[in-house]
Amino acid sequence: MNGAQSLIQSLVDSGVEVCFGNPGTSEMHFVAALDSVPQMRAVLGLFEGAVTGAADGYARIAGKPAATLLHLGPGMANGLANLHNARRAHTPIVNIVGDHATYHHGFDAPLESNIDALTEWLEGWSRRSDSTATVGSDAADAVAASMDPPGRIATLVLPADVSWSEGGVLAGPRDIPGRAEVTAAQIDSVVGALNAEGRATLLLGGVACSEAGLRAASRIAVATGAQILVETFPARLQRGAGLPSFERLGYFAEHATEQLRGTTQLVLAGAVSPVSFFAYPGKPSDLVPDGAAVTTLANVSDDVVGALEAVAELVAPGVEPVLQEANRPSLPSGPLDVRNWADVIGALLPDDAIISDEAATSGWAIPIALAGAPRHDVLTLTGGAIGQGIPVATGAAVAAPERPVINLEADGSAMYTITALWTQAREQLNVTTILLNNRAYAILRGELQRVGAEGGGVVAQSMLDLSSPNMDYVKISEGLGVPASRANTAEELAEQFAAALAEPGPHLIEVMLPPPS
Amino acid sequence: MNGAQSLIQSLVDSGVEVCFGNPGTSEMHFVAALDSVPQMRAVLGLFEGAVTGAADGYARIAGKPAATLLHLGPGMANGLANLHNARRAHTPIVNIVGDHATYHHGFDAPLESNIDALTEWLEGWSRRSDSTATVGSDAADAVAASMDPPGRIATLVLPADVSWSEGGVLAGPRDIPGRAEVTAAQIDSVVGALNAEGRATLLLGGVACSEAGLRAASRIAVATGAQILVETFPARLQRGAGLPSFERLGYFAEHATEQLRGTTQLVLAGAVSPVSFFAYPGKPSDLVPDGAAVTTLANVSDDVVGALEAVAELVAPGVEPVLQEANRPSLPSGPLDVRNWADVIGALLPDDAIISDEAATSGWAIPIALAGAPRHDVLTLTGGAIGQGIPVATGAAVAAPERPVINLEADGSAMYTITALWTQAREQLNVTTILLNNRAYAILRGELQRVGAEGGGVVAQSMLDLSSPNMDYVKISEGLGVPASRANTAEELAEQFAAALAEPGPHLIEVMLPPPS
Repeated sequence: MNGAQSLIQSLVDSGVEVCFGNPGTSEMHFVAALDSVPQMRAVLGLFEGAVTGAADGYARIAGKPAATLLHLGPGMANGLANLHNARRAHTPIVNIVGDHATYHHGFDAPLESNIDALTEWLEGWSRRSDSTATVGSDAADAVAASMDPPGRIATLVLPADVSWSEGGVLAGPRDIPGRAEVTAAQIDSVVGALNAEGRATLLLGGVACSEAGLRAASRIAVATGAQILVETFPARLQRGAGLPSFERLGYFAEHATEQLRGTTQLVLAGAVSPVSFFAYPGKPSDLVPDGAAVTTLANVSDDVVGALEAVAELVAPGVEPVLQEANRPSLPSGPLDVRNWADVIGALLPDDAIISDEAATSGWAIPIALAGAPRHDVLTLTGGAIGQGIPVATGAAVAAPERPVINLEADGSAMYTITALWTQAREQLNVTTILLNNRAYAILRGELQRVGAEGGGVVAQSMLDLSSPNMDYVKISEGLGVPASRANTAEELAEQFAAALAEPGPHLIEVMLPPPS
Repeated sequence: MNGAQSLIQSLVDSGVEVCFGNPGTSEMHFVAALDSVPQMRAVLGLFEGAVTGAADGYARIAGKPAATLLHLGPGMANGLANLHNARRAHTPIVNIVGDHATYHHGFDAPLESNIDALTEWLEGWSRRSDSTATVGSDAADAVAASMDPPGRIATLVLPADVSWSEGGVLAGPRDIPGRAEVTAAQIDSVVGALNAEGRATLLLGGVACSEAGLRAASRIAVATGAQILVETFPARLQRGAGLPSFERLGYFAEHATEQLRGTTQLVLAGAVSPVSFFAYPGKPSDLVPDGAAVTTLANVSDDVVGALEAVAELVAPGVEPVLQEANRPSLPSGPLDVRNWADVIGALLPDDAIISDEAATSGWAIPIALAGAPRHDVLTLTGGAIGQGIPVATGAAVAAPERPVINLEADGSAMYTITALWTQAREQLNVTTILLNNRAYAILRGELQRVGAEGGGVVAQSMLDLSSPNMDYVKISEGLGVPASRANTAEELAEQFAAALAEPGPHLIEVMLPPPS
């Protein structure tokens, strides 16, 4: 057994079943070894950003890591932006980064680079496998490190000779520590905050956005009158009819400030204290209202669900949560606009859908339109690095082939990792991409004003414009092997969305929206 | 004047005329300031890999840097792979990386990351601008650092508040040191090597691949019988009728070893000592023949052309170089294959073309087919990080709008940065992309065998296959705004290539090649 074989088998033995990859020469023994470990499913991406984003989407749904296979430093570099999003989501991922043979370093061959600098950027776990006998063990350690709560990126650098040499040894799965229990003192202090005079707001994040966390939070709200908010960009939020429904904290600081106004007691349950996404001249970075007390119930790595349930038992014994009633929008008609397209999705959303949401400014109506739709999971842009939506949808569909995946995708963001559509076609994944084409970096038009930038002259505006030339996403999608259509009216969108859901495999619908004003 | 205005004007005053960018919120004041400095041309890319690759192509032709505008750590990360290629090409580039406002750090907003780790990976010059009063000066320093021989990546991290605050101060251009002169002792030792018994090989790299360097090398060859080789991946190689023509060192170690066999004196002129691109089991990394003496005439940062001319004056006074005669292949006919498509390009190559060569395995016939074509520049994949060809062609066309740019592009490589086609359409650049579609990572099929990897079973082969589904590059190109056509025969390619050259603006021709055996 060579190193590559022991590595892949040890990953499988630790529960890793999927490897998203974009290999090169230094990974050829890993690729060759895939045939000897049929329990590992290999999924090819055409670009590393598609690979790492898919691994993120996979783990958010599967609850366990996929592996990635990346080609030396430059291949890893191409995958970093979506690893940044995964880091912010606390997603477990095991990167296998192929490297030159150990003895080949020092020759400074063209693809040589300082891979350690890139792993440092990820702020996760990393190790360089330096012997064939231990690479299996390194793999098991990497899986365990990735799953250590709250979850993180684990990167294993795999020199080609460690991979190709004989002498691989299998390693079994490691024990994974559970989430840290929250102390009684912490719970008491939160009960005190909830009972204090003034207005309490409970901000949910991480696994508190799961059904159990939401139910406990709702009970607390009913009993104490506390406001419940969900963090701006949850990794996975369970929503829809039959679940408690809470607003997310606004992306724009003005909106978040409005939501938090009057809060005197802010309780953090798996979320970090609210800060402005960007700095703006003359505006605060810290969004906690002046004078408000901040109490942490649980950090993101703690057992936040258990802690919420413990608080609920104390302040709301026997109280039932308030659950969202089933309530869909009516099917709209007429030309599409930034509001009615969301109603079409809400009206037709299938049961148990997964939504990969990178709709950006075109998506503001989605939380309203989908509030009473059948229950679904929402996966959001956790790290702010655009180009996440298509890959995350791809990985989620690999994790849950029986569930419909809907990718709400802004035109600007789509072009970073558009090639992930090809992987959807190759794997015949049930993903419907709703491509929202407003021919602009619309969010930046707003930001140009919000930051107080003078001018917005011809040149500045042209840097935010995607209409010269207009892109034709139907052609791009078909070129990548995904059947596509274009909707100009709500009726067309409804018909095309229903047809896409009814037919297996991926589809893309280009939704023509008016340019932003 | 705010910081952004002083920054852009200072870049212009140091000779930087073009900024390739993909901005976000933290760069909005830079974007707004573009209108106040009309001498700076702003070119939008849809993805940072297209931006950095374009800056590379621009500088290889313009001989001076462009700026890039990148959005915080994740935006920079997306641009790293092509910056790696630029680093290996010793291309001067000035990256402007927008960052959060200085006071916003520590809040750990979602896009916060350790940008310093990424600049470390680039092994270039870097600085964080920490005051509005000095950002103009920082910009001038960055330009100078980028041009310090042999050229490098200079990265300036620009916090948003440094950019938006008033108090910017302009800075004038810095003195740029010239290339270091080669000592008489070095020249004497090379003359000794050339006159020694046995076989001498002179390996040219860097600016030695320019006309003056090639002419001096040819004179040396004529007078001494030395073999002349060009490094495997020159940043810019001048070729064609009227210039000396030399083979490039082979990419595959077996080929390079054959070329170097019998060499007893290896002289390095701006090139590094030959090493295998990758390690292979049981094969050497160092390609210098056993027992051969290695003498360095000039490092890449030295005045290698002057040194070659000095050697030529000593060993070949009055000797003329051997120049390639004009000699084009005949126009072939019939179905396209991996050889005849190159003959079509050779038969029709226009005068003074720039070739961005990322043809990979499909391109082996190009050096032969183009040897006697009209003189042209060849820009190659210096760092081995694929996804360079389309962006480099884009930047080269911005640098030389009057010259035809031909991009020879492999299908696998194309998909990394395909969106650069849109920038070609937006800027109406005269680029003709020859998209070589063999529906495979053909090079890896060979490598799977060459590395001695066992198996090559069904799974392994599927990871190297791009035919399920086939991509339709005509549709993809048209979707990105670039007119496209498909050629199945040599006649069709000839007709389409001639038509593309005759019409302004970008075109793409999908060349259908047989799948690799």
